[in-house]
Amino acid sequence: MPFPILIDALDLMGTFVFALSGAMLAVRRDLDIFGIVVLAVAAGLAGGLVRDMLLGAHPPAALADSRYLLTALAAGVTAFFLNRQIERVTKPVMVLDAVGLGLFAVAGTQKALIFDIAALPAIVLGILTAVGGGVVRDLLVTEVPRVLREEVYALAALLGAAVVVATDRFQLPEGPMVVAAICLTVLVRVLSVWRG
Amino acid sequence: MPFPILIDALDLMGTFVFALSGAMLAVRRDLDIFGIVVLAVAAGLAGGLVRDMLLGAHPPAALADSRYLLTALAAGVTAFFLNRQIERVTKPVMVLDAVGLGLFAVAGTQKALIFDIAALPAIVLGILTAVGGGVVRDLLVTEVPRVLREEVYALAALLGAAVVVATDRFQLPEGPMVVAAICLTVLVRVLSVWRG
Amino acid sequence: MPFPILIDALDLMGTFVFALSGAMLAVRRDLDIFGIVVLAVAAGLAGGLVRDMLLGAHPPAALADSRYLLTALAAGVTAFFLNRQIERVTKPVMVLDAVGLGLFAVAGTQKALIFDIAALPAIVLGILTAVGGGVVRDLLVTEVPRVLREEVYALAALLGAAVVVATDRFQLPEGPMVVAAICLTVLVRVLSVWRG
Repeated sequence: MPFPILIDALDLMGTFVFALSGAMLAVRRDLDIFGIVVLAVAAGLAGGLVRDMLLGAHPPAALADSRYLLTALAAGVTAFFLNRQIERVTKPVMVLDAVGLGLFAVAGTQKALIFDIAALPAIVLGILTAVGGGVVRDLLVTEVPRVLREEVYALAALLGAAVVVATDRFQLPEGPMVVAAICLTVLVRVLSVWRG
Repeated sequence: MPFPILIDALDLMGTFVFALSGAMLAVRRDLDIFGIVVLAVAAGLAGGLVRDMLLGAHPPAALADSRYLLTALAAGVTAFFLNRQIERVTKPVMVLDAVGLGLFAVAGTQKALIFDIAALPAIVLGILTAVGGGVVRDLLVTEVPRVLREEVYALAALLGAAVVVATDRFQLPEGPMVVAAICLTVLVRVLSVWRG
Repeated sequence: MPFPILIDALDLMGTFVFALSGAMLAVRRDLDIFGIVVLAVAAGLAGGLVRDMLLGAHPPAALADSRYLLTALAAGVTAFFLNRQIERVTKPVMVLDAVGLGLFAVAGTQKALIFDIAALPAIVLGILTAVGGGVVRDLLVTEVPRVLREEVYALAALLGAAVVVATDRFQLPEGPMVVAAICLTVLVRVLSVWRG
């Protein structure tokens, strides 16, 4: 994987943004600080945990490296103290959420390919990595997950995952293609929200 | 396992029928094509995925062999285009669903025994394989899972699983007993629906 | 681990109490005997099963040792026949539930440390082991999990888990510290319920 430090930073940023989405949902549901932290951790880490359980990657990255948990906890604490300010900047948060979606779709698909999963299941694992945290987050407060309510959400993740599989299959240059895959997911997601 | 080609065909047919049940639920809930496909894949594959995660069978069968995903996707597309026609043939669909239940209960129990799981946990894994897809399907649209609402559903799976364990314990002829186990599950399930 | 027989007995007792909580919820929801057993097994075993799937401990303890399933089934049958009597002794049941919480938090954290998980993720796994059964139980009947509604529930488990990690880090005497960790969780939980 190219640019390991950049990918690493983006991965943690994706975790932060997804955890923030869980924490903000908890705030809107009037949950206390513990509920906020639980939803933050669930939303930030569940996608990667399910992916790693399915692949047999033990221990899962989110447990092997404490920075993931610290990042999710930081998002929970941030939402607890700054939720009014965060509510006001929904557009930047939405873009960050789209970035998280793209990055998790790409990272999930790459990890599946490393574990010798075929193209189609690898794409599904990429989508699952990207949407899994949000599914668990919504189920915990008994809401129908957003991935079932907003059609372009899953489609945007699928496109990013498909670019990764094509890169692998046709031996395209990995660095630029990973960037292209993330950008494609972000673009489709942001455009779909922007156009309503 | 006897008749591998037959079992293979039945396994994919079970996946198709369960995926169809997820897709039809999505149609009734007015979800779009993406929601239909997500529920189809979840209903068709979740039972086997959970079983394989618990057994440590990596990668899970549903990811190692792309035919499972293709089958679930085909069920989703079928439901999208033909849902009115499918609604009219509920009885054949119900019988196919019972076949899927029987086959998954038998296949799940057999796989557990191959992994040296004891009799009682093997039966539980068989039931989990058979009902797991439906549980995930119902939870995703925040309904109480059918296995909690229809008592004979779990019982039918349990009977099929118990026959498999008895076959293994008393070294009965595997071929006829597998057929008997599936038939027993189908019969109990169909009779219970038929008698209301 | 010190006092293996005592720990073993407490572990099964914790399984029984958690399974009982699932079975009693099923009774209150007017589910039949099958629903009662399903919720009993889910509440009693899900926390440990998720922990073992995340750690890659195959097969999970709850499937490798049939006593866990038998214990959960016994709780389901007990609730089916004696639910009126159990409703009357809510205080002893609540204390037992707190004991289960403490024991599962301690056992989950210890197992994570044995699998070389770092301190913070080990605490999270301990909490997950302790609250996981209740989360699955509540989700199956589409209720928001108690861990999100009662703040001190997760905190009590966290304190017990943290004592285990401190014991490991500072090489404190394991026997007394394990007892202290369980007592701390029980005390915090019971006091919080008692004070409303």
